[in-house]
Amino acid sequence: MDASLITYLVPVTGLLALIYAFTRAQWIARQDAGTELMQEIAGNIARGARAFLRREYRVLIVFVLVVAALLAVANATQPDSSWLISVSFITGALCSGLAGFIGMTVATKANVRTTQAARTGLGPALNVAFSGGLVMGLSVVGLGVLGLSLLFILYSGLDWDFARVINVIAGFSLGASSIALFARVGGGIYTKAADVGADLAGKVYEGIPEDDPRNPATIADNVGDNVGDVAGMGADLFESYVGSIIGTMVLGAAFLDAPEFVAQDAFGGLSAVLLPLVLAGVGILVSIVGSFFVRVREGGNPQKALNIGEFGAAGFMAVLSYFIIRAMLPAEWTATTPLVGTFTYTATGVFWAVVIGLVAGTLIGLVTEFYTATDTRPVNGIARQSITGSATNIIAGLGVGMYSTGIPALILAIGIIGAHHFAGLYGIAIAAVGMLSVTGIQLAVDAYGPISDNAGGIAEMAELPPEVRQRTDKLDAVGNTTAAIGKGFAIGSAALTALGLFAAFMTQAGIDSIDVAQPRILAGVLIGAMLPYVFSAMAMGAVGRAAGDMIKEVGRQFREIKGLREGTARAEYERCVDISTRAAIREMIAPGLLAVLVPVIVGFIDKNMLGGLLAGVTVSGVLFAIFQANAGGAWDNAKKTIEADFTVDGATYSKGSDAHKAAVVGDTVGDPLKDTSGPSLNILLKLIAVVALVIAPLIA
Amino acid sequence: MDASLITYLVPVTGLLALIYAFTRAQWIARQDAGTELMQEIAGNIARGARAFLRREYRVLIVFVLVVAALLAVANATQPDSSWLISVSFITGALCSGLAGFIGMTVATKANVRTTQAARTGLGPALNVAFSGGLVMGLSVVGLGVLGLSLLFILYSGLDWDFARVINVIAGFSLGASSIALFARVGGGIYTKAADVGADLAGKVYEGIPEDDPRNPATIADNVGDNVGDVAGMGADLFESYVGSIIGTMVLGAAFLDAPEFVAQDAFGGLSAVLLPLVLAGVGILVSIVGSFFVRVREGGNPQKALNIGEFGAAGFMAVLSYFIIRAMLPAEWTATTPLVGTFTYTATGVFWAVVIGLVAGTLIGLVTEFYTATDTRPVNGIARQSITGSATNIIAGLGVGMYSTGIPALILAIGIIGAHHFAGLYGIAIAAVGMLSVTGIQLAVDAYGPISDNAGGIAEMAELPPEVRQRTDKLDAVGNTTAAIGKGFAIGSAALTALGLFAAFMTQAGIDSIDVAQPRILAGVLIGAMLPYVFSAMAMGAVGRAAGDMIKEVGRQFREIKGLREGTARAEYERCVDISTRAAIREMIAPGLLAVLVPVIVGFIDKNMLGGLLAGVTVSGVLFAIFQANAGGAWDNAKKTIEADFTVDGATYSKGSDAHKAAVVGDTVGDPLKDTSGPSLNILLKLIAVVALVIAPLIA
Repeated sequence: MDASLITYLVPVTGLLALIYAFTRAQWIARQDAGTELMQEIAGNIARGARAFLRREYRVLIVFVLVVAALLAVANATQPDSSWLISVSFITGALCSGLAGFIGMTVATKANVRTTQAARTGLGPALNVAFSGGLVMGLSVVGLGVLGLSLLFILYSGLDWDFARVINVIAGFSLGASSIALFARVGGGIYTKAADVGADLAGKVYEGIPEDDPRNPATIADNVGDNVGDVAGMGADLFESYVGSIIGTMVLGAAFLDAPEFVAQDAFGGLSAVLLPLVLAGVGILVSIVGSFFVRVREGGNPQKALNIGEFGAAGFMAVLSYFIIRAMLPAEWTATTPLVGTFTYTATGVFWAVVIGLVAGTLIGLVTEFYTATDTRPVNGIARQSITGSATNIIAGLGVGMYSTGIPALILAIGIIGAHHFAGLYGIAIAAVGMLSVTGIQLAVDAYGPISDNAGGIAEMAELPPEVRQRTDKLDAVGNTTAAIGKGFAIGSAALTALGLFAAFMTQAGIDSIDVAQPRILAGVLIGAMLPYVFSAMAMGAVGRAAGDMIKEVGRQFREIKGLREGTARAEYERCVDISTRAAIREMIAPGLLAVLVPVIVGFIDKNMLGGLLAGVTVSGVLFAIFQANAGGAWDNAKKTIEADFTVDGATYSKGSDAHKAAVVGDTVGDPLKDTSGPSLNILLKLIAVVALVIAPLIA
Repeated sequence: MDASLITYLVPVTGLLALIYAFTRAQWIARQDAGTELMQEIAGNIARGARAFLRREYRVLIVFVLVVAALLAVANATQPDSSWLISVSFITGALCSGLAGFIGMTVATKANVRTTQAARTGLGPALNVAFSGGLVMGLSVVGLGVLGLSLLFILYSGLDWDFARVINVIAGFSLGASSIALFARVGGGIYTKAADVGADLAGKVYEGIPEDDPRNPATIADNVGDNVGDVAGMGADLFESYVGSIIGTMVLGAAFLDAPEFVAQDAFGGLSAVLLPLVLAGVGILVSIVGSFFVRVREGGNPQKALNIGEFGAAGFMAVLSYFIIRAMLPAEWTATTPLVGTFTYTATGVFWAVVIGLVAGTLIGLVTEFYTATDTRPVNGIARQSITGSATNIIAGLGVGMYSTGIPALILAIGIIGAHHFAGLYGIAIAAVGMLSVTGIQLAVDAYGPISDNAGGIAEMAELPPEVRQRTDKLDAVGNTTAAIGKGFAIGSAALTALGLFAAFMTQAGIDSIDVAQPRILAGVLIGAMLPYVFSAMAMGAVGRAAGDMIKEVGRQFREIKGLREGTARAEYERCVDISTRAAIREMIAPGLLAVLVPVIVGFIDKNMLGGLLAGVTVSGVLFAIFQANAGGAWDNAKKTIEADFTVDGATYSKGSDAHKAAVVGDTVGDPLKDTSGPSLNILLKLIAVVALVIAPLIA
């Protein structure tokens, strides 16, 4: 097959994803949006979400333009780079931003229509909620593939050597990371500031429950689900998706210097570079096909429907990738690359690396489920420890979080060794691509959760009949499990992506070993391993401060708006949305600077030390992220366990009991861990690796 | 000077330490032990402590003999090792065990005599408490130096090459680590099981306060202070002390192959090997001299007295070490060693490395104080967050713990680079020796804390006049600060010692680089970095289970012993001591096996992977230990801040307020973190490094 033909086919799959997403979005918009009250509530949420995006994007435009200008100036005179890196950067930021905008807009339409559909049955409700998630998922992969492949076509047309093409394309990844930083860290701060603020305001100014329409922070809280869990997760996976592809392209380019490979290759030596793009493109088609299988009948199990779609897609992808890889790559070749040395590669070996990625992603997700889902031993253990008070609940949750790092670390360790065994460093990078190839449907399942959650909230606020709430609760309960799996998957993919980018950085910076026996490198590892702690502390502190602002604003409204407490006057929801928005953007500056400046400073001191830093931040960040995410998830479900009546030694503990109060403390502690600081670490890992990759030509 | 002369002088300093410790112990025993009630309470504590030691040592003897047999068999046929390694091992275990026995016996005599002395004044009370600590400190350094130097003399007399002498001596360090594992991990579990058990039992069976003599767990709680904070800390520092010396000896032996060094050296090439022993010996003398300056007048500040002794000793040691190093080492030599390559060393450079160790240890201690002492911004912040409940208190404390890793990581990173800059890997190892050279007085100041704490408890239980309690409180408050500094110091020294042992392992195993770009090594780093999480989770779970046993036993006694609740019958304290003891020993088996088996298994799979594992466990363990220790310390003092009346925005929060209740939750959560799982990580780091060093000849 011709290289140029396949290059042009890839963006077509991206376009297809966007077109299909568009038709689903149109279909959602055509669904009934329910009663006037439902529409008003949904309208407030949608407006709040748009207000956040508008303000976020206003700051982002300035940030992106400044960084673009810096990139252009720094790279203009570099022989192996170009000012065009700023174009890649802006394109990456635009694509990620656009995906977030589309996803969130559709999610805030799908929520109320899910509620309305739940009035007729479970099947229609699942269909609407999942379609909403699918629009997000397909927008992410569609824009990712489209943007990347078009830039690749554009730069390949210039008279550049291949290293230069790749250096300049890496800017796309940096653009995606910048948006991810804002969306995931800022969004995480937003959602928890609103959540904790609404919750505590209810406690401080008594008699106002969290979901009560009189609570001015309640809309901000609902907006937060969309901002954090839809847009934030989307930007996170967009970054992983794009980063894993670029990392693999960089490593695949090393084979251009391997005569044996080039001689055999059907694409003139480019097949290893093109493979991640092709796998991503095929993954899009598989995701669309998989989505057709997500169907449930009344009384059926939505979890099963989602599993069939998700795991079916992964399995199908594994089979297809075998034929793709066998068709594209030479059956066997020996190459000598700087980092791996002389190694004999096989197409089958590359296939196994892809399978390892797919399997590792799934396994990490399942382990996450084991540690955080209701009715598991760890979660029931926390529920039991709630009986003796909040202190024992907290200790038990911390313990579960710590334990839960064990198996994922082993899976990653085995995955790294395995992927490398089959296909060297290229294997590690392509494993990440494999893991992320079905991101389209994966993210659909993820984003389905917060949409169902919102749908339930709207049903409650609009006082719909109990069977509606029962149906949305059923969807939501499944959403909690998929969210846990999705979080594990996001961390695992961030780790593999960061490792792929790490290898790409070493290649581009001309580093051929990172010897921790050297003191500077060991110091780099130590500093890198410390960053996740300080970054997490910053994110958690930000939530605390922003929640404080929110509580004050709620107090002001109760004092100044007459009739609010009596329910005769409307709360100024917009002010609360605005406070959360401003706080989120203000508070993410410090951690953002930390993530960007530290690798730049260390890199210019000593590029090898930066290599150590990358190793340290990746390893420490993955573990600390798993610890935080799983402790938080387990606390959440321990609370839910007690709310569903928890019986131990003959005694039953229910909502309102002392055990429940203790479990609520754990849940509140876990909230910022699992929704703000934990997920932010995914971004930290990748952002630092991308920054390193982008400055690699400058410090080489 | 003759090598053999100086070799014989070193054990003399060890003997001197023991003789002086003996005279201080005699002096303490001669002091008045107070009223009959005081003596009875103290007698119960002393008996409990002895009961713990007896049972612990009974298990230990079996463990030590089995490991000794394994070591003897595995090493008997190794040409560069010998069955005598089991003799080193047993000697190390014996010395550490004996130091713990002496320290704890004297501490349980000093506590009640401190109380009695406090009836006459602050000065006499400080004198008794500090003398008690000094006996512990001098026993540790005395037995460490004596044991090591005698083995060195013994093995040097055999017809062995030097690498073999060092390999066989390394068993001493493993013996010390084994005891440290039992004393620190087991002791940590003991102390918190008793503490949490006594506390919760009081809550569950109402009307029995924690310190009430009717609470059967109260003596176990007081025993715990001695078991955990005196014997545990002593064994921890004994391990660091011995490990740092042996690590430096290994690295110093590399100069025996440097002709330029040997030609110039006054000790025939052995000066770099002897230096750590000599510095340790001189440090003993400095510690004894420093102890003379710890004096306080009535109304004076005990903190100042301790600081003069401690920092004065460190400063004096720095000055002395300049002259010692200049006298012992050649002024300048160039050597080529496997790990460092060709490097020009100077005596002055080695001196600066020692200074870096002394300064880094002090700085990490001071940073710890900043994050955990009362009236600091972080601790007041936690106190403020307690007003909105226990959830915000916990979040704030976790945040402080995370932040507090930042500066210590930078100090260690700079210290590593600096020490290496001045004297290569030898510099890093000798920096650890520098840091630990004044362990004698450092540990005296540390152990003074729990003695004062016990003294206060006895004053309370014996219902002495309030001015006595005021004096012991003043001593205890200072003890909290010194404990925080001591904890930071213990972690920092564990890190440097582990790095020194790590370098020694690489030398002995014939590894000349640990390249994290290699997948097996990266996997090793990942697994290593995960171990502290799982190890901590095990330790925390152990505390929970053991505390549960304790609560049940307290309940049984209240049910079955007639008149206990009324105060007419005596509680069966021994049963509670026994439960805590058995639980501690049972629960430390799993984490102990983890720490020993993982490095052995990984090492036999791939020695380079073990190198990666060591790097991972050291870096991750240090950070996780700092996080846990400082979060715990900060929660503790946030509670104390509120107990001393905390005023915010005009409102005052005191003991018994809701803010105080929230702060108590934080303190309870922090207890196992700062006293069990956190300090256990010090042992994990060093133990894994020592195990690696001991198996190095087998996997080389």
